[in-house]
Amino acid sequence: MSQDNRRFLLAERPTGPVDENTYDLVREPVPGIDEGEALVKVKSISIDPTNRTWIGEEPTYLPPVAIGEVMRGLGLGEVIESNNANYPVGALVNGLTGWQDYVVTSDQMPLMVVPEGVQASPAQLLGTLGMTGCTAYFGMLEIGEPKEGDTVVVSAAAGAVGSVAGQLAKMKGARVVGIAGGPEKCSFLTDTLGFDAAVDYKADDWRAQLKAATPDGIDVNFENVGGEIMEAVIGRLNVGSRMVLCGLISGYNDTEPPPGPRTFGNLLIKRVKLQGFIILDYYPRFGEAIRELSGWVADGSLRSEQTVVEGFEELPNALNMLFAGQNTGKLVVHISD
Amino acid sequence: MSQDNRRFLLAERPTGPVDENTYDLVREPVPGIDEGEALVKVKSISIDPTNRTWIGEEPTYLPPVAIGEVMRGLGLGEVIESNNANYPVGALVNGLTGWQDYVVTSDQMPLMVVPEGVQASPAQLLGTLGMTGCTAYFGMLEIGEPKEGDTVVVSAAAGAVGSVAGQLAKMKGARVVGIAGGPEKCSFLTDTLGFDAAVDYKADDWRAQLKAATPDGIDVNFENVGGEIMEAVIGRLNVGSRMVLCGLISGYNDTEPPPGPRTFGNLLIKRVKLQGFIILDYYPRFGEAIRELSGWVADGSLRSEQTVVEGFEELPNALNMLFAGQNTGKLVVHISD
Repeated sequence: MSQDNRRFLLAERPTGPVDENTYDLVREPVPGIDEGEALVKVKSISIDPTNRTWIGEEPTYLPPVAIGEVMRGLGLGEVIESNNANYPVGALVNGLTGWQDYVVTSDQMPLMVVPEGVQASPAQLLGTLGMTGCTAYFGMLEIGEPKEGDTVVVSAAAGAVGSVAGQLAKMKGARVVGIAGGPEKCSFLTDTLGFDAAVDYKADDWRAQLKAATPDGIDVNFENVGGEIMEAVIGRLNVGSRMVLCGLISGYNDTEPPPGPRTFGNLLIKRVKLQGFIILDYYPRFGEAIRELSGWVADGSLRSEQTVVEGFEELPNALNMLFAGQNTGKLVVHISD
Repeated sequence: MSQDNRRFLLAERPTGPVDENTYDLVREPVPGIDEGEALVKVKSISIDPTNRTWIGEEPTYLPPVAIGEVMRGLGLGEVIESNNANYPVGALVNGLTGWQDYVVTSDQMPLMVVPEGVQASPAQLLGTLGMTGCTAYFGMLEIGEPKEGDTVVVSAAAGAVGSVAGQLAKMKGARVVGIAGGPEKCSFLTDTLGFDAAVDYKADDWRAQLKAATPDGIDVNFENVGGEIMEAVIGRLNVGSRMVLCGLISGYNDTEPPPGPRTFGNLLIKRVKLQGFIILDYYPRFGEAIRELSGWVADGSLRSEQTVVEGFEELPNALNMLFAGQNTGKLVVHISD
């Protein structure tokens, strides 16, 4: 275990994928703590599409990470030293740790304490039982509102959020179609997760596949990707359908905003309700979601899938893996036990 | 007064604006009526953006008008002969009369009877106290939900729906910005209708005007137009804002679907609720809207503006006038007293 605090600081804003010039990897002394503070040793870091949006020029729902600042990221750690009764030594904590080995927390910079007795791996706590699971939970159940017999289409369906969102729609009795890249991920969706159909967006005939998989149109779109696949999905939305706009990952590495969907008019014709959605708005209700999700994971009705990359130094590469779709389920980087 | 029934039949689908080949103007005998039917003499016909969408190749929210069929359109008429107690002779009726002098109505093909005692011109009954007013009423009040102090942006604001929608938002205490073409319409919005600001989309500096008129961003967009102005408006939507997607008139004459807004991602970042909206879905509630709108027109709190074109033969030209923005308020064609 390193006695230094390794940190990835933002060195320059990438114009496409992150590369070797994007970050400086520095070693600093482990920080000391003042009154009211606690020291957290980070164990695993979550890799999310939003990491890339935080290092662009433009503010999104949070201000951009400044040049020279530690890279913003979600992580899971353990309290190893404490002057704060809310953070007892040994507690697991979850939240914006940043890409570093150690972080200081306090009541002003809170991390969420994982309730004692929760039996889950760090990857699960960052995934299905963390922000990722909450995103699928509130997005699908409160905005998408799938009903018995609805056709639900989830993009990036083999990814962290999509794989949970699709399973939740299945639990509500919907017919679920997942869009994913490559035959392996597609079989994972239908054979392992029990989706009704899968569309391989890397296949030449993806449009025909989408049409065949949604013969009665689409009642709910849980959108994670954007681009021309979303355009085709919007074109097949039914009257009164719902569109959960959760992510537009296909454009996050672009330097110019991508073109909007040419099927935009169908949102009018079909009286679609589209709701843009950022999970942080639901923060006060995470507890209720995680309780319910834990129950489903425990009784086997919800499968939690992870891809774990080994080693702190791999953080930037892991972010590119995410954009290349090289993960199945939640992608995390394991940095210490 | 003609004793023939003049009718515009669809001859071919236009590829852009309608022209002299789009319709055949025919003269047929005035139709007779059977049991349960009533004969209506049409007095005024409403010109609406949706007329153009009904003669394209593709079904929209209604099937396309077939070649050889009478042009679909909203109109106001008077019952002149009746075998149906629901349609007494002398009653005014409002609904899908088509572009013709006479139409037969029945309980199977209903027109809405204007309640006795309503004091309004045919143009008002087709406009502020008809489908147009209902569109502004439900779209703005039930979907847009403007609150005290909100910034509301209405496009095609000097048009039939926009002029009413903006006034309703003013009544709710919002700051209202209208987008319209040319200095005359812009002065009409601010000086006559009491909007807080107007943006002239025909001016070179319309982007700067929009920015200056919405210094705190936009909380409600009542969208009638689409295209690059909508794209700019979406780019200025605030967190938690609402977008009433009522019309996309700028694209209705296009042969290919227009590009979608490049600012689509802002719908996600700002957690916008966008709702596509077709007024026919609210048909059962027209009564309540028209009662309330009539009261506001009567007490002077709502101004009802019309542009009246004279003569049945002018119907196709009037449709092109609408797309060229040559009307202020409701555009109707007067065909008989």
